Amino acid sequence: MKKHRTVPIEMNPGEFRTIGHHLVDRIADLLDSLPAHPVTTGESPPDIRKALDASRLLPDIGTDPAQLMNHATDLLFDHSLFNSHPRFWGYITSAAAPIGILGDLLASAINQNTGAWFLSPMASEIEAQTVRWIAELLGFPTDCGGLLVSGGNMANIVCFLAARQAKAGWDVRAAGLHGSKTQQLRIYCSKETHTWVQKAADMTGIGTNNIRWIPTDKELRMDIEILRDQIRADKKTGEQPFIVIGTAGSVSTGAIDDLEEISKLCREEELWFHVDGAYGGFAAMLPDASPELRALSQADSVAVDPHKWLYAPLEAGCALVRDPEKLREAFAYHPPYYHFGVEAINYLDYGPQNSRGFRALKVWLALQQAGRKGYEQMLADDIQLAKTLHELVAQKPELEAFTHSLSITTFRHVPSDLKITSDSVEEYLNQLNTELLTRLQNSGEAYLSNAVIDGKFTLRACIVNFRSSLADIDALPEIVLRIGREVDAELRPERLNIKG
Amino acid sequence: MKKHRTVPIEMNPGEFRTIGHHLVDRIADLLDSLPAHPVTTGESPPDIRKALDASRLLPDIGTDPAQLMNHATDLLFDHSLFNSHPRFWGYITSAAAPIGILGDLLASAINQNTGAWFLSPMASEIEAQTVRWIAELLGFPTDCGGLLVSGGNMANIVCFLAARQAKAGWDVRAAGLHGSKTQQLRIYCSKETHTWVQKAADMTGIGTNNIRWIPTDKELRMDIEILRDQIRADKKTGEQPFIVIGTAGSVSTGAIDDLEEISKLCREEELWFHVDGAYGGFAAMLPDASPELRALSQADSVAVDPHKWLYAPLEAGCALVRDPEKLREAFAYHPPYYHFGVEAINYLDYGPQNSRGFRALKVWLALQQAGRKGYEQMLADDIQLAKTLHELVAQKPELEAFTHSLSITTFRHVPSDLKITSDSVEEYLNQLNTELLTRLQNSGEAYLSNAVIDGKFTLRACIVNFRSSLADIDALPEIVLRIGREVDAELRPERLNIKG
Repeated sequence: MKKHRTVPIEMNPGEFRTIGHHLVDRIADLLDSLPAHPVTTGESPPDIRKALDASRLLPDIGTDPAQLMNHATDLLFDHSLFNSHPRFWGYITSAAAPIGILGDLLASAINQNTGAWFLSPMASEIEAQTVRWIAELLGFPTDCGGLLVSGGNMANIVCFLAARQAKAGWDVRAAGLHGSKTQQLRIYCSKETHTWVQKAADMTGIGTNNIRWIPTDKELRMDIEILRDQIRADKKTGEQPFIVIGTAGSVSTGAIDDLEEISKLCREEELWFHVDGAYGGFAAMLPDASPELRALSQADSVAVDPHKWLYAPLEAGCALVRDPEKLREAFAYHPPYYHFGVEAINYLDYGPQNSRGFRALKVWLALQQAGRKGYEQMLADDIQLAKTLHELVAQKPELEAFTHSLSITTFRHVPSDLKITSDSVEEYLNQLNTELLTRLQNSGEAYLSNAVIDGKFTLRACIVNFRSSLADIDALPEIVLRIGREVDAELRPERLNIKG
Repeated sequence: MKKHRTVPIEMNPGEFRTIGHHLVDRIADLLDSLPAHPVTTGESPPDIRKALDASRLLPDIGTDPAQLMNHATDLLFDHSLFNSHPRFWGYITSAAAPIGILGDLLASAINQNTGAWFLSPMASEIEAQTVRWIAELLGFPTDCGGLLVSGGNMANIVCFLAARQAKAGWDVRAAGLHGSKTQQLRIYCSKETHTWVQKAADMTGIGTNNIRWIPTDKELRMDIEILRDQIRADKKTGEQPFIVIGTAGSVSTGAIDDLEEISKLCREEELWFHVDGAYGGFAAMLPDASPELRALSQADSVAVDPHKWLYAPLEAGCALVRDPEKLREAFAYHPPYYHFGVEAINYLDYGPQNSRGFRALKVWLALQQAGRKGYEQMLADDIQLAKTLHELVAQKPELEAFTHSLSITTFRHVPSDLKITSDSVEEYLNQLNTELLTRLQNSGEAYLSNAVIDGKFTLRACIVNFRSSLADIDALPEIVLRIGREVDAELRPERLNIKG
C-alpha cells in the first residue's frame, strides 16, 4: 500500500467546483422554469424503468462523476413529479425553499453526526435553537424537549412513545406490553386521524385494536362528548386509557379538533394530550388563529412537520415534548450528558436514532430568511388562496364546493343536469370525479388529490406552496371543468342521460 | 391579494446561482484543506453557544439569504468535528463522498416524496435499483424487499418488526403484544450487540428484559453452544424465541459472529435470522471475506449502513428482507400498488415513514462512481490500514496491541515500567488511557474512541475513511505516546512509581 491512497470515490477540488457549479445552475434553471413544465409526466412504471435501465447490474468499473451527475440530473428532471411546481396541490407536500436546498448541501458537506454533542457541537446547538424557535412559533414552552426527525410519522411516534412510558405505570421499556398482565393500554383519536396512529399502535406493541376511533361532528372534528363517555366506560371495565390525540389540521379537510376541550378532558382524566400538528400546527402562529387551535400550546406533546408548512425540503419533522425529562425517559440509556461540566444534549438519548444527520440546518436557515412575519404572511396567503378557490368554485354552476379549512378546499364536478340527488346519481358522480382526478393528475396541468366526505368523492386542493399565486388558483376551475365535461361525455350511463 | 405573490422565502435564479456557487467553492476549499484543520476544536458548550448566540429569539424580520448562508458556513466550518478529516477514526462514522454531497443537493432540489411511487416515479425506481445493487454486493437475493432508512438503528428496527410479524404466530399488529396472554417473545443476540437492540425491544413493546444476551468467546463472537442451549431451555419453559441477531462487525472490535452456524441453528429451530451488518456487512463483498461473514447472504434480513462503509453522507441506512412479502406484511395497510396495470412500490408500505425523502440518490451515485471494484479496493485499503496500525503498535514497547478485525484496531498505552500486571496497575492503566483519549480527542491531532476489552480501557481506531493514508496511520503511535507520557507524568500515583 502506498503512502497516499488513490481513491475512486474522491473528487479533486477543481472537479467538485465544476460539477457543483453546473448542478447549481441546472437547479436554478429548473426552479425558474417550473411553470413551463408539466407538474408530472404521468409515465408508467415500464416507461420509467426503461429510461433508468432498471435491470442493469451494478457496474464493476467506475464512471466519470461529471457525466454521472449530469445523467442523474437528466433522469430526475425529465421523469419526476414536481411538488415545487406552482400548481402542485396534492396530499400535503410543500414546495421546497431554495435556502433549504442549499442548507441540505451544506449539511451534507459538513456531515455532522448529531447523535452526540461532541461529534457535532455547533450542529447540535443549531438543532436545539431550531427546536426552541419552533416551540416559540407554536406558543409552546421553549424549554420543552424536542428534536428533528424524518417526518410526521416519526415525530408523532416519538411523542407517542414518550406518552407510553409516562403513562403506562409500569416499566414498559424493560418489561414490554406484557408487563401488565391485566390492563390494556387504550388510544383515543378521531376517525379523521392520519394513518400514523395505526403504525404507532402497531409498531409500539399496543396494537391497532386498541385505538378507539371517536366519531366526528359535522365539521369533522372529534366529538368530545363521545370521547369522554368512551374514556369513562373503558376505565370502568378496567382498561387503561393513556393518550388522547387531537388533530390540528386533518389530512382530508384540514379540520381542527377542539384542542382546548381535549386539553381540559385530559387534565380531568389524567391522560397524555398529544397534538398531531404535522399539517396545521404551524397555523397556530397566525394572529387570527382560533382558540381551539392555539390550545395546542397546552399539549403534553406536539408533532409538526417543517417539511410541510415551513417549506423545508424533505425530510424534516419535529417532535416537541413539554417535559424534556419525559422525552429522555422514553429513549435514553444514559444519564444526562455533561461536557466540560456543562449539560449538553446527545440527541441519541431523545429518539430512536443513534447516528443522525443534520436536518435542522435547512429549517433554521429558512426561519431566519423569512422571519416570523414572513412565515405569517406566507401561511396566511396559502390559506387565502384556498379560501378564494372555495369562493371561485361556489360561483361555478357545474362545481360543488364542499369544505374549506386552513389551506385545504374540497369540491367536485356536478354536471348541471345532475343536481337532483339520488343513489345512482351519487354513484355516478363518484365515478366521474374519480376519473376526472386521474386525468387531471396525468395531464400535468395541475395536481390535486381527493377526500371522501360523507361517501362523496371530492377533489381536494391543499395549498402549502409559496409558489402558487392567485393566477394559478384562478385557472383551476376551468381546467377541472374542461376535463370533467370530457369525462362526463364519455362515461355518463344512458339511464342518467337526462340532458336533452 | 395580488395576482403574483411576493414571497419572503423565495430566491431568484440569479441569487440561487451566486449563493450556490459560493457555497460550492467554500465546500471545495474546506475538503481540500481538511488535513490542515484540527479534527475538532474541542470547545465547551458555552463556547459554542456564545458563537451561535444561542439564546436569541426567532427574529421577526427576515435576513438576506447570502449573508445568512455565509454566516451558517462560518459557524459550521469553525466549530465542527470533521469526520471527513483523514485522521478521524472514532466510533463508526465515515468520511462523506463528495459525489454523495452533490447527490444530496440534487435530492433536496428535486424534493421527491418517495413514500408513493406516483409522487416520485424516477426516485422510487432509483431507490429500488439501489436496494438491488446493495443486495448484489452482499450476495443477498436481489429480489428481496428493502428500502433506505435513516441509519443502522432504523434499518435494524425495520427488519426486527418484519421478524416480529412473521414469527409471533398471532396478529401482533392488531392485537399487540397482549395478543398472546401466555407467551413471551424472546430475542437472542451476543453481549457485543449494538444498543439498537435495546431500542428495538423497547420501542416494539417486547421489552428489554426479553433480550437474551448470549456470552461471547475469546474473539468476542457469540457462543453458539450457549445460544442453542438457551433457545432450547426457553422453549421448554413455554417461552417463544423468535429472532436471533448475528453481528457482522461489532462496534467495539469488529468481531464477526459465525453467521453460518447461526443460520443453521435458526433453520433447525425455525427462528428468524437477522444480521446487523451496519458496520461490517459490506465487507462481505471482498473476495477474501470469510465464510462466517459471507453467510449473511443466508439471513432472513440484513441491516447495512451506506453512511458507514459506502461513505455516503448521513443519513443512509438500508434494510433488506429476503421475502419482500414479509416486509410488506409488517408495515402495509394497503394491497400491492398497481399503476397503469403494473406493480410498483409505494415505499410507505415498506417501513415506518409516510412522507420520505430521497436518500438513495447519494448511494446510487457513489456506487457508480467507484463501481464494485472501486469499493472492494477502498474497503480492503481501510482494513489494511487497520492491520498496519496493529503491527505498528505491536512494535512499540510502550503500546500494547489488542484486537484487529475488519478495520478496527484496539490498543493502549502501557508505560515500560508497568508491564507487570496487578489490579492496581490495571486500574491505573485504565485511568491513564481514559485521560489520554480525552486529551487526544480535544487536541484535534487525531480522533479515536475507546473499547473496553476484558475490563481494560483500550484506544480504538475504526477506519471507514477513504481519506486516511498510510502516512496518517504512521503518525498515530507517536502522537499517542507523546500525550500518554505527558499524562503518565502527571497522573502516576506515588506507589506505582517504580521507574527509577
